[in-house]
Amino acid sequence: MEEFSTKESYLKELKQRALLPEGFRTAIQSFEFYPDERDAEEPMKMNLTLIELDDPTELFAGVFTRNAFPGYPVEIGRDLLGEDKVSGVLINNRISNVRCEGGRETALKIVDELKKLRQSQFPYFPSSTGIIGWKLPEEDLCNNLKPLIDGLESSDLSQAAESIMTTDAFPKLRSIEIDGGRICAIGKGAGMIEPDMATMLVFVLTDIAIEREELRSVFSDVINETFNRISIDSDQSTSDTALIFSSGKKSCSSVDEFKKALFSVCHSLSEDIVRNGEGTSHVIRVKVSEAETVDEAVALGKALVNSPLTKTAIFGNDPNVGRFIQAMGDYLGKNDLYINPEKINISIGDQVVYENGFFSLDEDKEKKLSNYMKDCSFVNSGGYPPHEKPVDLFISLRRGTAEAVVLGSDLTYEYVRENADYRT
Amino acid sequence: MEEFSTKESYLKELKQRALLPEGFRTAIQSFEFYPDERDAEEPMKMNLTLIELDDPTELFAGVFTRNAFPGYPVEIGRDLLGEDKVSGVLINNRISNVRCEGGRETALKIVDELKKLRQSQFPYFPSSTGIIGWKLPEEDLCNNLKPLIDGLESSDLSQAAESIMTTDAFPKLRSIEIDGGRICAIGKGAGMIEPDMATMLVFVLTDIAIEREELRSVFSDVINETFNRISIDSDQSTSDTALIFSSGKKSCSSVDEFKKALFSVCHSLSEDIVRNGEGTSHVIRVKVSEAETVDEAVALGKALVNSPLTKTAIFGNDPNVGRFIQAMGDYLGKNDLYINPEKINISIGDQVVYENGFFSLDEDKEKKLSNYMKDCSFVNSGGYPPHEKPVDLFISLRRGTAEAVVLGSDLTYEYVRENADYRT
Repeated sequence: MEEFSTKESYLKELKQRALLPEGFRTAIQSFEFYPDERDAEEPMKMNLTLIELDDPTELFAGVFTRNAFPGYPVEIGRDLLGEDKVSGVLINNRISNVRCEGGRETALKIVDELKKLRQSQFPYFPSSTGIIGWKLPEEDLCNNLKPLIDGLESSDLSQAAESIMTTDAFPKLRSIEIDGGRICAIGKGAGMIEPDMATMLVFVLTDIAIEREELRSVFSDVINETFNRISIDSDQSTSDTALIFSSGKKSCSSVDEFKKALFSVCHSLSEDIVRNGEGTSHVIRVKVSEAETVDEAVALGKALVNSPLTKTAIFGNDPNVGRFIQAMGDYLGKNDLYINPEKINISIGDQVVYENGFFSLDEDKEKKLSNYMKDCSFVNSGGYPPHEKPVDLFISLRRGTAEAVVLGSDLTYEYVRENADYRT
Repeated sequence: MEEFSTKESYLKELKQRALLPEGFRTAIQSFEFYPDERDAEEPMKMNLTLIELDDPTELFAGVFTRNAFPGYPVEIGRDLLGEDKVSGVLINNRISNVRCEGGRETALKIVDELKKLRQSQFPYFPSSTGIIGWKLPEEDLCNNLKPLIDGLESSDLSQAAESIMTTDAFPKLRSIEIDGGRICAIGKGAGMIEPDMATMLVFVLTDIAIEREELRSVFSDVINETFNRISIDSDQSTSDTALIFSSGKKSCSSVDEFKKALFSVCHSLSEDIVRNGEGTSHVIRVKVSEAETVDEAVALGKALVNSPLTKTAIFGNDPNVGRFIQAMGDYLGKNDLYINPEKINISIGDQVVYENGFFSLDEDKEKKLSNYMKDCSFVNSGGYPPHEKPVDLFISLRRGTAEAVVLGSDLTYEYVRENADYRT
């Protein structure tokens, strides 16, 4: 449970986490542009971020959104997974390049231009996040590649963590040391977050060498157990992307240990993303245990954290257990599934609220729980970023041995405000 | 398109709609009680509503929530569908009688007591709506049956429409004349609404005689095409119930015509329920056409009206077409379905905004659309109930001939406020 009292102390901590693994360089470049879609008097600002390997690598993996109408960078990224080697990734914020005429060609042109300027044999992934439906400013982007490249340096990743932000409230960067090397990951995303990926971009860098197929399998497992178990608003973005690159500079002593280390980094980063959810004032952490299968546990956990009535109750510090039962029963009914309600136990924090099929609540317990929820709220908490105390819900189904933890956020005025005013 | 400028003019209109079909009587009774779950200084108020046939009828049908953890009245109601005849329905608001210890016995006892007092051979449906998890005040309810019965009268249904309300902003009653008789329906429900039924109670009365099995088939079809195509917050309640009773006093000239009339009443009533959604400031009406199947059209329509990002955009009068594409693509991706995005056309009102796979938007069009959405907003509209202008979205998939209309509501500060403060 880390808590940072000031922005300065957090950014200082981030600097310490941000040391690059061996074999990587990064650069950022900001510029102003006038979007085609607006007769704007004021220009908009766009950030370019480049993450590059000293030597192109064959050790890389990617996981992308399952949204059926993905952005062009996602389509291109899927194709690039088949390449022998890649040089790195070029990221822009502000416009996400989804289903605008010529968008695919523009994305290809920009990374191709970069490849030429770097005189590299191997391609770069394009990655875009921001408004859906607008066109990327192709010419401005191309003109800014040269100054971007001039800024390449091999010290730390914290500027990149800031540069990829859109509506994020704070930069997100987690790292760990292993086998004399490092795993270092940055992520962005605050809305349109229900992974099977999210408007979430995650870039993981390591110098630990893991054979390509093994890296892909490990990465896919870890993403599935971390970023694919969070939901801010149940809305899966068109542009979600998680990429991992290894420079292969350090040898790996145990793939299992590497996987644990990678899980730890990705789990912390996924918590950061929920904590930074648009308007989030409580992180909701649901542990569903004694389920028949992990899928069942995940599905019920997601049903809870995606129910608007559960989310608003938690925003209001209201231990409204009726809504939890409603949300789970709704999911089961809609999917023609059955679980015996008389076997279920539910606790909030350390208080049992539903036992053997019946509500177990009284006024005193509700007051305690309401205070517990207030204590977990970010309202008036003041930290930057907010503290790491979630509202814990424990659901025991008493029908098996599988379990899963799902993270979500509450539904607040601020969420509505941010999303009603996003472009205006 | 009806619009009522004052509460008085609406209630006057309601009186005209409210004439009971032949063969029915109704009564209401209010009382105060102290719930077991609270050390309350102030009592709470509960309304009892009785709808009774002059002669028990075998012509009745019911459709209930698919929530896997239904309330006791729903469990009992399902059983009653097998009875030869029923006497009517007894409804209470305030507490919904779901999964509290002894709740089933209490529900059975109250309707049994009523049956005895009425010296009837045939049972009454119980029906409860309100807080989940609390116990019904059994003794108070039994004590109020006698005064309730004393008030039975056979003139109109408008008092019943008011008596069953919980968080509803206005009473909802629709009727139509057919074959010298009438179909008259009341409904309640404002939150926890995504039917496959909703915290929605709907009671339809008619004097037109339709053979029982035919009535059940017609009713099920009509519910499926009206109340099962609305969603306020995607949360399916534990207590949703729709019941129809016919006194059989008038003969039916055409079942098809009866079905059309029933559809008309239920469609208008389902629109009333969305218009009355908690915090709703825009009704969203999505017509999905040229789909392969009706199920596909309904599912995509629901994906749109349930997407928090689509809902907040419409609240903000923002024609954010990117979010519509995201929401549909999200649904398709999560369900391993594919539709070619280059075939899709989308219009908002009379403006084409996405054509042949690409966004078709400019600043001028966006301004027009934002004004159109403002015109459809209830904010500052002042009517009681609000006007009947929805935001129309037209989605053409160009892959088949099926179509469906789905109704939803936007997501507003007021929705969050009502649901964060529901019990406090």
